[in-house]
Amino acid sequence: MRAAVASVAGIGVTELPDPVPGPGQVLVRTLACGICGSDLHAARDLEAFAGNLSRVGAPVVFDPAGELVFGHEFSAELVGYGPDTAGRLPIGTMVCAVPMVLGPQGPESIGYSQRYPGGFGELMVLQEDGLLPVPEGRTAEEAALTEPLSVGEHAVAAARLAPSDVCVVVGCGPVGLAVIAALKARGHAPVVAADFSPARRSLAARLGADVVVDPAAESPYARWQEFGVPATALERGANELFGFPGNDGVIFECVGVPGVLQQVIDGAAAKSRVVVVGVCMEPDGIEAFPAIVKELEVRFVFGYTQAEFAAVLQRDVPAGLVTSAVGLDGVAGAFEALRAPGEHVKIMVKP
Amino acid sequence: MRAAVASVAGIGVTELPDPVPGPGQVLVRTLACGICGSDLHAARDLEAFAGNLSRVGAPVVFDPAGELVFGHEFSAELVGYGPDTAGRLPIGTMVCAVPMVLGPQGPESIGYSQRYPGGFGELMVLQEDGLLPVPEGRTAEEAALTEPLSVGEHAVAAARLAPSDVCVVVGCGPVGLAVIAALKARGHAPVVAADFSPARRSLAARLGADVVVDPAAESPYARWQEFGVPATALERGANELFGFPGNDGVIFECVGVPGVLQQVIDGAAAKSRVVVVGVCMEPDGIEAFPAIVKELEVRFVFGYTQAEFAAVLQRDVPAGLVTSAVGLDGVAGAFEALRAPGEHVKIMVKP
Repeated sequence: MRAAVASVAGIGVTELPDPVPGPGQVLVRTLACGICGSDLHAARDLEAFAGNLSRVGAPVVFDPAGELVFGHEFSAELVGYGPDTAGRLPIGTMVCAVPMVLGPQGPESIGYSQRYPGGFGELMVLQEDGLLPVPEGRTAEEAALTEPLSVGEHAVAAARLAPSDVCVVVGCGPVGLAVIAALKARGHAPVVAADFSPARRSLAARLGADVVVDPAAESPYARWQEFGVPATALERGANELFGFPGNDGVIFECVGVPGVLQQVIDGAAAKSRVVVVGVCMEPDGIEAFPAIVKELEVRFVFGYTQAEFAAVLQRDVPAGLVTSAVGLDGVAGAFEALRAPGEHVKIMVKP
Repeated sequence: MRAAVASVAGIGVTELPDPVPGPGQVLVRTLACGICGSDLHAARDLEAFAGNLSRVGAPVVFDPAGELVFGHEFSAELVGYGPDTAGRLPIGTMVCAVPMVLGPQGPESIGYSQRYPGGFGELMVLQEDGLLPVPEGRTAEEAALTEPLSVGEHAVAAARLAPSDVCVVVGCGPVGLAVIAALKARGHAPVVAADFSPARRSLAARLGADVVVDPAAESPYARWQEFGVPATALERGANELFGFPGNDGVIFECVGVPGVLQQVIDGAAAKSRVVVVGVCMEPDGIEAFPAIVKELEVRFVFGYTQAEFAAVLQRDVPAGLVTSAVGLDGVAGAFEALRAPGEHVKIMVKP
């Protein structure tokens, strides 16, 4: 098969042997596969990426000196069954799946494994048990958004929202927009969205954000009082003491670069819940004292559950998230384009 | 009255005017008052302490260039009523109180205010509404431990404990020991306690810690598996997927110096809840990536509620927490002694 491969030499297109489904596995043809921020991280320095994973106890099942086929946000067409499968879905069914297989060596990520190439190749091997048929009328690109939208769903579930909570979404890239989509799927309001990019702000508004803020012009945290959230520990304490009503603030950190968590800590209202969805892989500096005095709860989240993924797949997909589509020959250029902040949201690869 | 005062010149003893209770307030004679880590912070650099407070929106009601009477962990004897009071308790009653008054300028901390000198002076003004009579048979020193023990109670309440949670207490100074006391007041087990100081470790064991660890010899996090806590995100995920049982880890960070939060993040089991009780006032460096992959919940806590304070006052007080007592002339030396780590737990001032 043809595939876009990442290696220390950069990203190129090459011919690879077709993957062969093992017991309990199926062969699929990739229809669409989104480029994720993690792919950008990994492509920049495969060795460092592998080191980051192993340092946190995540199994590294690839050789960083070799070639890798990324791509874990995919939709695909079922083309064949391996041994020991039940054949529950007709050949030709459009499917999605959590990008994970249970190989002989235990669970492995699809797209960060040399045994299980991802969606930037023409063919993939998936686990039959994990296959989810895509609802009627959905395009392949929409179906491929199930994975990144599930990240937002998981983050919102972790926030344990009360109806009166005031939500601030910091950063409206793919992660922030997925959070807004998940909040609006619940009918939650108000949602304040902040991004430096006008294109991303208008997309946030289109997804239903109630207030859209340019952080260069206005602090996304300036409006606590307006929405009935006591900002300081003192106001909060006085409310509790005298029984005044007040709402809680919830902040979704969807940027994931050093410095942003501290901005969130400084801007948070007392007793806010902070959900860290952006994946920061560099060392960061924080000052705990404001977080302590304000009694913040900081919840770091990652991925999603199978149930969340399946639920998102049944939901309508917001329009406008896919800003470009490329073939395999366009993958290298797409990675370059995504390094310019604010230009793109999701670029789809169609092998 | 005589009082130990802190100023840019250091700690000395001086004669001050007797404080005068305003409307709704009472005059009390200090019986015992503990020295808190915050007092050590403040004494080191009053200006920086004031700056830290105002930066987080806490009202600074003292002039850092002036003299301050610290002391917010007190028991006292009621000696007189101010105007507009109900006189509910007999003169001579031993009382405790949350160290806060409602002055004409709003709520003010006792012990960090020039209007409301704290327990390192012979006399204090308290709010009548906040007075709590000390149960029969309690010594003045035991009653003065209500405040620091309430900090532990508040931290444990914030952890939302399940009976099967495995608790690790990092640091067995006054804060860590208060956490252990609160855990054991609930009958919680297992509790793993870690401290470099043999004296503090033996006190942790005396308070009921089930496992006591010297971090120089053994990691306090090495025992997750032994207690049925899956350590990595992968093990955790496999448990959830296949329905295996597993316990959660809860870590109480009770040290509050730079670097410790990162050690906790690195040592935490996947999906642990981390309660940050130690008050770190210096900038710190953290790496969020391990916290993200492990989906940690980090809860910063501060102080306690009036209800928690009142509940702790009714509880038996663990023995051994007070390691020394001094008069006003001994306050300066006590501050020096407390800077040597691990030597003391709580030093009581008896004016």
